[in-house]
Amino acid sequence: MKIHEKYISRAIELGRNAMGTAAPNPMVGCVIVCEGKIIAEGYTSPYGGPHAEVNAINTVSDPSVLSRSTLYVTLEPCSHYGKTPPCADLIRKLKIPRVVIGLKDPYEQVAGRGIEHLKEGGAEVISGILEQECREHHKRFLCFHEEKRPYIILKWAQTLDGFMAPDKKARTKDPSPYWITGKSSRQLVHQWRSQEQAILVGTNTVLEDNPRLDVRDWHGRSPTRIFLDPELRIDGEYHVLQPPPLTFRVTKKGISTRETDLLKHWTIDFDKDIALQLCELMYGENINSVIVEGGARTLEAFIQAGLWDEARVFTGTTRFGTGLKAPEIKGKIIRESKIGTDHLKIVRNDQ
Amino acid sequence: MKIHEKYISRAIELGRNAMGTAAPNPMVGCVIVCEGKIIAEGYTSPYGGPHAEVNAINTVSDPSVLSRSTLYVTLEPCSHYGKTPPCADLIRKLKIPRVVIGLKDPYEQVAGRGIEHLKEGGAEVISGILEQECREHHKRFLCFHEEKRPYIILKWAQTLDGFMAPDKKARTKDPSPYWITGKSSRQLVHQWRSQEQAILVGTNTVLEDNPRLDVRDWHGRSPTRIFLDPELRIDGEYHVLQPPPLTFRVTKKGISTRETDLLKHWTIDFDKDIALQLCELMYGENINSVIVEGGARTLEAFIQAGLWDEARVFTGTTRFGTGLKAPEIKGKIIRESKIGTDHLKIVRNDQ
Repeated sequence: MKIHEKYISRAIELGRNAMGTAAPNPMVGCVIVCEGKIIAEGYTSPYGGPHAEVNAINTVSDPSVLSRSTLYVTLEPCSHYGKTPPCADLIRKLKIPRVVIGLKDPYEQVAGRGIEHLKEGGAEVISGILEQECREHHKRFLCFHEEKRPYIILKWAQTLDGFMAPDKKARTKDPSPYWITGKSSRQLVHQWRSQEQAILVGTNTVLEDNPRLDVRDWHGRSPTRIFLDPELRIDGEYHVLQPPPLTFRVTKKGISTRETDLLKHWTIDFDKDIALQLCELMYGENINSVIVEGGARTLEAFIQAGLWDEARVFTGTTRFGTGLKAPEIKGKIIRESKIGTDHLKIVRNDQ
Repeated sequence: MKIHEKYISRAIELGRNAMGTAAPNPMVGCVIVCEGKIIAEGYTSPYGGPHAEVNAINTVSDPSVLSRSTLYVTLEPCSHYGKTPPCADLIRKLKIPRVVIGLKDPYEQVAGRGIEHLKEGGAEVISGILEQECREHHKRFLCFHEEKRPYIILKWAQTLDGFMAPDKKARTKDPSPYWITGKSSRQLVHQWRSQEQAILVGTNTVLEDNPRLDVRDWHGRSPTRIFLDPELRIDGEYHVLQPPPLTFRVTKKGISTRETDLLKHWTIDFDKDIALQLCELMYGENINSVIVEGGARTLEAFIQAGLWDEARVFTGTTRFGTGLKAPEIKGKIIRESKIGTDHLKIVRNDQ
């Protein structure tokens, strides 16, 4: 691994600290190197706060060394005023002579202009270092700007014989809660929730499981909740209607319901492609990523529409014999591992 | 997960950024929370630099808010002068009213004195939060101070039929390099090397593979090299004798050899327990962790002595039929996963 690759690789590692908090900003990592030594590190602060480059620069006690340093950053520095002043300006002002960039920014307001701005200031700019790894790291942000939709993660748990739930009769006989996966898998799911901006479930999942959809078994922010409720069957007794966090209830058109600061109302046409309509609504709300946690019909809607990026499938150790069949998914297996006694398979959409 | 647990969990995550750079200091993570919001984060700087608490505190622009904040830290703040002034003093001076600590420090010069010092200053101190997770996170540092030896990781790769190397005859016929594992596994090993303070191999491994023992496929610091060479058979042609980094050559007693700044000489009695003697020498050099990468005899020496904490065993997809048998190891399997087409098993010593 060459020298630039090493520092960009470290910058990616640092950027991961901002997973789930920076969004909808990208989780950028930054390293400043002077005479072969890392003298500063930074990553994007929670949304609204300073960017990675600013955080790294702010830890340098003697800014005069910056004029003989190289700044490494996973993503092209911004050149526009957002919630903070442009990073490219700051780097230029501090006369940092060399900037090494993992990936050019696809965001329309940046797209090569950060690099231009740095070059005009006299800096040497090298870009496209560990580009593939930076694409993977910034996949949510890239998907949002390139596909105009959130990055979509499908998640479900199935039994050894491929069921997501026992059949209705068995449930009526024994209505006690059942778990397909173990404690470690459930905690891992909470960690995943903390990494995404939104979580989406269908009506039956709310009615049958009454999930909280939060991250109580992990640290971090609970995602924005989105649940389907075409006919307004879900009432205030259910966890999903208890604030916070921000929640979107999705009904069919023509239904009116009360909105509050934390409970918003979306309508879609349930006879058309619901996945596509939900993607458009989420895009409009600046939601860069979503984890879809069921049920089977909701997952199938995204699979049928080809609107998914990753599927994370747990297989437990029990069998139901009959029940609700889990979706079938085709793609590239990118990871297989044991979580406690469960098996986890992560599949990427390679269409 | 309760509120203290959430922030300590985040502090652990931050502490990981210092893996491989903080040692022999512990890789501490720190979070400062004011009115339910994280206002600062920090982790231990590379050895000699500021501790996690100082790094977090230094990012707070208005220090007056600290007097209504809670500081979360994975390990008890130090109360002694090392390379930096004591953190407990700084926390006390800034009048941070509450300190939540994952784990008490086992280090003799700290051991409860940091907590005492904070309490004397009037702070509320809560300790033992996610203690088990903090122990796991600080396992190298704890092993060093509790067992008076480095944390020991054994690593090897074996074929499907359990061999570490083809037999000598086959090697003579075809001396070209062979790989049991794929590229991803080899890169992972470089990442592991960057996380430990030292790497240790036996004579035959040097003579037969001429390994570099560095981290060229990952970012970070190459570990201190230790190699066995009882009879001085390894000459300057071999990579292990080319500086940097710091290297220890271990010969039998009575052998004299030239030392340089980067090449040191240790002698041990090869008729006695070599693992134990090596542990004592590493402890004397302040080496908190070591990865032992073979060969079979060296690995067996540590296994026989019970001087190991983790074994990381790759199994590739080839068969040799005959050759050098890989060690057998008993312990608790803590992880199994696929790395490319290889199988990785991590076993913990549960004796």
